[in-house]
Amino acid sequence: MTDQTEIALVSVDLEGVRTAAARLSGLLHLTPVLTSRSVDLRSGRQLFLKCENLQRTGSFKLRGALNAVLNLKPDLADRGVLTASSGNFAQGLAWAARHRCVSAHVVMPTDVPKVKRDAVEALGAIIHTCEPTPMADRDRVCKEVCDETGVTFISPHDHPDVIAGQGTIALELLDQVAALDAIVASVGGGGLVSGIAVAAKALRPAIRVIGAEPDGAADAARSKAEGRLLSEANPRSIAKGLLVGLGESTWCIIRDLVDEVITVDDDATVRAMRLVWERMKIIIEPSAAVAVAAALSPAFRERVELGRVAVVLSGGNVDLDDLPWHALI
Amino acid sequence: MTDQTEIALVSVDLEGVRTAAARLSGLLHLTPVLTSRSVDLRSGRQLFLKCENLQRTGSFKLRGALNAVLNLKPDLADRGVLTASSGNFAQGLAWAARHRCVSAHVVMPTDVPKVKRDAVEALGAIIHTCEPTPMADRDRVCKEVCDETGVTFISPHDHPDVIAGQGTIALELLDQVAALDAIVASVGGGGLVSGIAVAAKALRPAIRVIGAEPDGAADAARSKAEGRLLSEANPRSIAKGLLVGLGESTWCIIRDLVDEVITVDDDATVRAMRLVWERMKIIIEPSAAVAVAAALSPAFRERVELGRVAVVLSGGNVDLDDLPWHALI
Repeated sequence: MTDQTEIALVSVDLEGVRTAAARLSGLLHLTPVLTSRSVDLRSGRQLFLKCENLQRTGSFKLRGALNAVLNLKPDLADRGVLTASSGNFAQGLAWAARHRCVSAHVVMPTDVPKVKRDAVEALGAIIHTCEPTPMADRDRVCKEVCDETGVTFISPHDHPDVIAGQGTIALELLDQVAALDAIVASVGGGGLVSGIAVAAKALRPAIRVIGAEPDGAADAARSKAEGRLLSEANPRSIAKGLLVGLGESTWCIIRDLVDEVITVDDDATVRAMRLVWERMKIIIEPSAAVAVAAALSPAFRERVELGRVAVVLSGGNVDLDDLPWHALI
Repeated sequence: MTDQTEIALVSVDLEGVRTAAARLSGLLHLTPVLTSRSVDLRSGRQLFLKCENLQRTGSFKLRGALNAVLNLKPDLADRGVLTASSGNFAQGLAWAARHRCVSAHVVMPTDVPKVKRDAVEALGAIIHTCEPTPMADRDRVCKEVCDETGVTFISPHDHPDVIAGQGTIALELLDQVAALDAIVASVGGGGLVSGIAVAAKALRPAIRVIGAEPDGAADAARSKAEGRLLSEANPRSIAKGLLVGLGESTWCIIRDLVDEVITVDDDATVRAMRLVWERMKIIIEPSAAVAVAAALSPAFRERVELGRVAVVLSGGNVDLDDLPWHALI
């Protein structure tokens, strides 16, 4: 199944993940792994929830952003960094840039919720706005900022240092939980699941790495089924963080190292989100709940060969004044 | 300051707390201690948040309840246990009784929110209702149940095994955090802060143990000031778990071993609650937020001699459909 030349092409391997872990050491939280009898009763197995929602900035995205920013050569770093993101990666990059005392530029669409924009600005980033559609406008603004300032563009997922940074989650998980059979992680651009797959498969080839996607943004599941990278024309889901499509690099890793991708509907996601809030007393966002919903799905319950399963709770950034279950009850 | 004979009278000492820890070992979560740069910026010092909101049943109350139930002689345990509580201790006792396969009876007033009643019933307890006022009606129902069934009444706070169980939090904290200067815990009936004081002061006499109370239910602060146990005629606070008055046993320990009690208003409590939800991504209830608010209060900020302070997040049981900040914004 694996084609190591492709992986070499995008330059992410276990060594890169280990280098990232050394680089990030002491700067980030070693996030806890929590368990819940209530959740286990519903999943039919032991679930180990890796709490990246409790990571600094409220999501795993900081790992990749910080690894990428810290790995920039000084002359490049001094000119600043840029990304296009309205969510967690923007916060991660802003935090990382502030840590290295360089400037962060973020391109986000004009219709981004104020709470998200405020969070990025509070970390000192300079915001540039683009039109919500077409995507070409975002690329135009990014190019303008690059041309004017000489900043380095860092993709939220399609960047080897970003993928390697996200992979550090797998190193921690394998250290924190003995005898894991599988890891479930949600898939948007694919940086999280591909980083995890690179590290986990290298250290423990028998482990299964499983992606989780909203059924309204299932480009990874469809691409896996077809064996080629497909884009999503009109993605829709309550999990806004997962609407972005796979990148070239992440697709290659997902194709070769991720065993399967499970899709869930938004109702299941909201139920899973509320279950975790109510029973585990931790705040997860819909994009994280997608992975929980996959682990609770009827089809997954039947996978009796998978006894000990880790689920990555990718983030916890929600607007507390706009909670999704009010529409359901 | 200390009068050890009083403490001996209520039979709670470090040995009792250690015995409780051994008894509870493996049955409860070793709850994590989390830190947050955002919270530290507001507190002006390093805060270590002990996450009893992540404890089984969503609060620390299970520790004391389980210690008391497990310490009952078999013939007494077989007849079942009883408490009067509409909140977290009721859940704790129900969980503990189910664990020991004995029956749990809970007396709660007729006006208790359905969500709280449901949570206790879901754990298999038998509910008996009393009138919300006067308190004598609650005692009447408790006596009736005792007379009819021969159950053992276990006070939510005024019971040596309950206090010793809550004290196990201090053993964990001193193990999890080096060189602690102080521990802040909220005060309702006083079981939490008194158990912590017994253990922490015995192991580390220089540590300060600080209570936190809503200003509308400040019987511990007033009792400390007067040097005698005062009751609260008409307690009012958003922190419903803290409206109950001190017991005789907890008062003796608080008088002798708790260094001070800080009071906070409900607005500060709600702000502290939202801060923890937003920045730390964990769910705490108002009674827990009272301790956070105390640690963030302007007066406490000036206490520069206290560098490393633990705050006990006592519980996370809230109604997600009725969040307190909607009234503030």
